[in-house]
Parts: sequence; C-alpha cells; structure tokens
Amino acid sequence: MASREFAFIDRLRLLATDPAARGLDDDVAVVGDLVLTHDMIAEGVHFLPSDPPASVGWKLVAVNLSDLAGKGAEPVAALMGMTLTGDAEWDERFLSGVGAACEAYALALVGGDTIALPAGTPRVLSMTAVGRAAEKIPSRSGGSAGDVLWVVGTLGDAALGLAALHADQEAEGPLVEAYRRPVPQLAAGRELAPRATAMMDLSDGLLLDAARLATASSCAATLDLDTLPLSRAFIAEAGSDRRARLLAATGGDDYALLAAFPAEFDPLSLSLPARTILARIGTLTDGEGLELFDAGGEVPLPEQLGYEHRAQNI
Amino acid sequence: MASREFAFIDRLRLLATDPAARGLDDDVAVVGDLVLTHDMIAEGVHFLPSDPPASVGWKLVAVNLSDLAGKGAEPVAALMGMTLTGDAEWDERFLSGVGAACEAYALALVGGDTIALPAGTPRVLSMTAVGRAAEKIPSRSGGSAGDVLWVVGTLGDAALGLAALHADQEAEGPLVEAYRRPVPQLAAGRELAPRATAMMDLSDGLLLDAARLATASSCAATLDLDTLPLSRAFIAEAGSDRRARLLAATGGDDYALLAAFPAEFDPLSLSLPARTILARIGTLTDGEGLELFDAGGEVPLPEQLGYEHRAQNI
Repeated sequence: MASREFAFIDRLRLLATDPAARGLDDDVAVVGDLVLTHDMIAEGVHFLPSDPPASVGWKLVAVNLSDLAGKGAEPVAALMGMTLTGDAEWDERFLSGVGAACEAYALALVGGDTIALPAGTPRVLSMTAVGRAAEKIPSRSGGSAGDVLWVVGTLGDAALGLAALHADQEAEGPLVEAYRRPVPQLAAGRELAPRATAMMDLSDGLLLDAARLATASSCAATLDLDTLPLSRAFIAEAGSDRRARLLAATGGDDYALLAAFPAEFDPLSLSLPARTILARIGTLTDGEGLELFDAGGEVPLPEQLGYEHRAQNI
Repeated sequence: MASREFAFIDRLRLLATDPAARGLDDDVAVVGDLVLTHDMIAEGVHFLPSDPPASVGWKLVAVNLSDLAGKGAEPVAALMGMTLTGDAEWDERFLSGVGAACEAYALALVGGDTIALPAGTPRVLSMTAVGRAAEKIPSRSGGSAGDVLWVVGTLGDAALGLAALHADQEAEGPLVEAYRRPVPQLAAGRELAPRATAMMDLSDGLLLDAARLATASSCAATLDLDTLPLSRAFIAEAGSDRRARLLAATGGDDYALLAAFPAEFDPLSLSLPARTILARIGTLTDGEGLELFDAGGEVPLPEQLGYEHRAQNI
C-alpha cells in the first residue's frame, strides 16, 4: 500500500467511527453476525494485462475470501462490480473464473454492478464478500506479549511467480499459479479463529503484515527467518538462504494466514485439513517494532517490509 | 445501461442462482434480514471530471442509498472502494462529501479498499451499502394487472442539470444540484414498502425502469405523460409540453421511486414525510410492453427509453 493510501486511510478513519468498522484496522467489518470485506483489484497493479482472464476472476474472489479466512468466517454471498472495456471474450472468460471460484468455495454471487468504460482504460474489479462469523471473530489487536505467531500456508511463491512473468510473459508452473490463483485458507481459518488471540490474512508481505498485527496488539514481534514455510518450488527457484527468505517474507500476495496463540496452546492439536502447512515463526513481545533473526543472529530489516500495491507507472 | 452490459448480465445470471440474488433483477440482494447493494460510478460516465469532488462523494453514497430506499430498507453500513490517482486535494474533498452524506443518512462507513492508479486514469468509485430490511421487501416482480403506478419525487431535473453542465461547466442552480446531489427517498421508501406490490428506485429513466418493473411483473404498463411530477425549476427551463415530458420520462439519474399498489389502496393515506411529492402516473395492465398517452392521445415511444450509462467516448 503506497504512502498516499495510508494518508487517505487515516483521513477515512475519522469518518469510520462506528464500532462495526473496527477502526478500519481489520480488513473486515462486522454487522450483526456477518463479516463484510470489500477489495478491489486493478489491471497493471494487482494483475497483469497478459494474465488469463479466468485467473483474474478467480483472484478477485480469492483475495476477498482470504479476508474472510483471516477472520474464520464462512463464505455466504458476494456482490461484484466490474468495468467493461469492450472485450466481450475477456469478460466472458473472466466470468468463468469467477464462477469456478464461487463454486469451489460455495459462494453465492448475489448482485453487483457493471459499467462500460472506454477501451484501453485499465480494468477495475471490485467485490464485497459477506461471510458468517464464528462465535469469535479474531481481530488484529488481541495479541499479547508471550503469544506465539504461526503462519498457515507457504510464503514467497506468488512473488517469484510475478517475477517470472515479468521476465517472460509465457512463464508457467506452480509459482505462476500461486500468483494467479491464490487459495484462500478458509477451512484452516475456521479452525484457528476460536483459539487465536489475533489473526489476519497475509496479502502485503509477512513483515509488513506482522508489524501491523504487532502494532495493533501494542506489542513488538520477533520473527525467526529460518522457520518461514517455503514450498519446494520456491526453494528450487530461489534457494533458502537469508536473501531468499527475506524475499519470501516481503514479497506479498501470499494469501496465507498469520495467527497469534497463547504459548501454552499448540495449534497442531487442531483438526486442520490434510496437507495444511503450519509453521511457528516467532513471538509477540513487550515493546514495539519488528525484530528479525536467523541462525546467523540478528537480521537487519529490509527497507521494504512488504509489497506496496503501487501502480507500475507512478 | 449499454447493450453489452445487458449481454454480460445475462451471462452473470447463469452464475447467480442463489435465491438471495433475486435473479439479479432487483438492484439488491437479500441476506438474512439485510439488504445489500453494490454500485460503481466512474468519471466521465456517472460524473464529470469538473464536478466538485464533494458532490461526487455525496452522489456515490446517494445512488447506493437510493437502491435501499427502493426496497424500504434502513441504511446500516457501507464499504467503499476507490481509486487514488494522485490528487490528494480531490480525494480529501471527495471524502468530505462522503462524510456529509453518511452523516445525513446515519450511514456508518465501516470499511473498504483503496488502490493507487496512474494519474489521468478515470476514477472508479464503488460502494456496497447494507440496509436492514423491513418485514416485507418489495421486488420488481410483484405487480399485477390493475395495480396503480406511483412516483415519489420529481423527474427530469438531473437530466436538465447535466445538459446545462455540458453547455456550461460553470452552470449552477437547482437542476445542477439535482444532478450532482441526488436525495435518496429513504423515509418515503420505508413507508411505501409494506404496502407496495412492486417497487424500485428510478435511476435510468422512468420509461426504461417502468418497462423493467412491468416485464418483471409479467404485465404491460400504461403511463399518462400529463401526470409526471415536474419541478418548478424543470418547467421554468424546459416547459411542460409533450417534448419536455418525454425528456423527463427518459432522462435518468432521478433517484425517485416507482411503486405499484392495488387500485383500492391510496398511498396518500400513508404518513409520508412533509413535502413528499407523490404522483399517480399510470397502471399495470394485462399484456406486455409500454404504452404512453397524454391529453392528445397515444404518444409514440421514443427510441431511447432511458439514459444508458455509456462511456462518453465509446
């Protein structure tokens, strides 16, 4: 998120005083027993003009469902907004991807809006996803010093996939798939939510998002780079040294989950879906800020903690 | 709405099979006791680059609340998506307009998303408004032959305001205000909803929207042009002859309400807000299609029944 987005959101916060807004710090709003999230994706920012349209449709749904996953909510319904820029085949294929994702996650598409824009205008796609909340909806701010931080899913795959596509538009493989077709961790999120003291989905990079969770919880976070969950495809491509791990920790677009649990609770005791990847990556501590270390000792923080969704030509 | 939007929505309908979607025919979706609507507005299509940013913010809220008004729902919360294109002053003033409308209608802004786009990209603004439904949520499809059609609010003001702005960017006055700052008929909508057999808000022009309501209700509609509610400002500018009335019936952007009631029910008996303008404009009949008449007899249907939100340079 670019700095002017931050400034704007600070201004927005002054308007969003209702408790349902959760200070805008939480990716979701809570209305009754429903959890609502609204995410937009734009061509050239969140997806590439060369991405297959069906994957863009899938991604629009998945990024919204990932916000629900981060709160342990069950998908109920979605409303979609899209701009039509005169390429009916693109639109049709986009829609097939939306449909595939809705079917995969039992999400009912219940409404929305379309607007015609001049050909050549970058596409802007929006979705509001509505979920049914579990008894407890973990915020970002409920963590305490001593809590242990866990990640569900692997990190860095999408960042490598995007880099591969920048180098070669025709690139393929699991890393490109991770970028184009993220998988929201809905089932794991539902299992973790009742026990997590704080939880969120990881969309902008682990370091940036962990710093946000720690700050919201009035804590510092200490992360062990050596413990980050990396996929075999990631390691095959980038290795697993400190440099590779820093890339995984800052690349963004992971749509993994970050959750804090009291030290005495072991999330491995939960009945998580088969093949769930769960890694203990650090702790919340007294103080503020972020501290990184690995087997070699303390690791200086990189200048960019996460992926900022800046438009390419700004 | 342009024809390719129609084609796209037909395709979308195949996806939106959940009863909550109401066949996508209804401007809103119903989830539990909540009514949800999602509208986007785009620069150059729904507002002018020269419009005061605060009025654009107001309009984004008002067009969404008008959908809630059409279903008799009480505003509860909204999520907003917006593109930031590098003009912080515009964004700030836009937000003050959003804030003013939220305050005026007790709408809590509870979340949303912002994305940075290259300067010069047309702004795209989205909102999902959530309302609490009354006991009965009138659809478009509940009307029967014999029902009487009523309009709440005046017609044609915004169309004249937009025409004035096209002729002179500096134009002012009540017609320009009607275009820039529509007033959602929330209080009237709540009163009418329990008794209406069918109801909707009028955003695309009376003739187009009345044809939609009639079609959804498996009826024809007969409208008396002479009875259309026109404001004094409209009449002062355009007169009230057949030509002026056809303009009012097709101009769009009215954000008035169209409701059908059984012939024996008189909506004037409801306790509507002071100064509510309520006009009996026609009837639903057996058959299909739209019939127009005035004191001079039958009036041929104009080629365009309503305002199509086509991008200006398509």
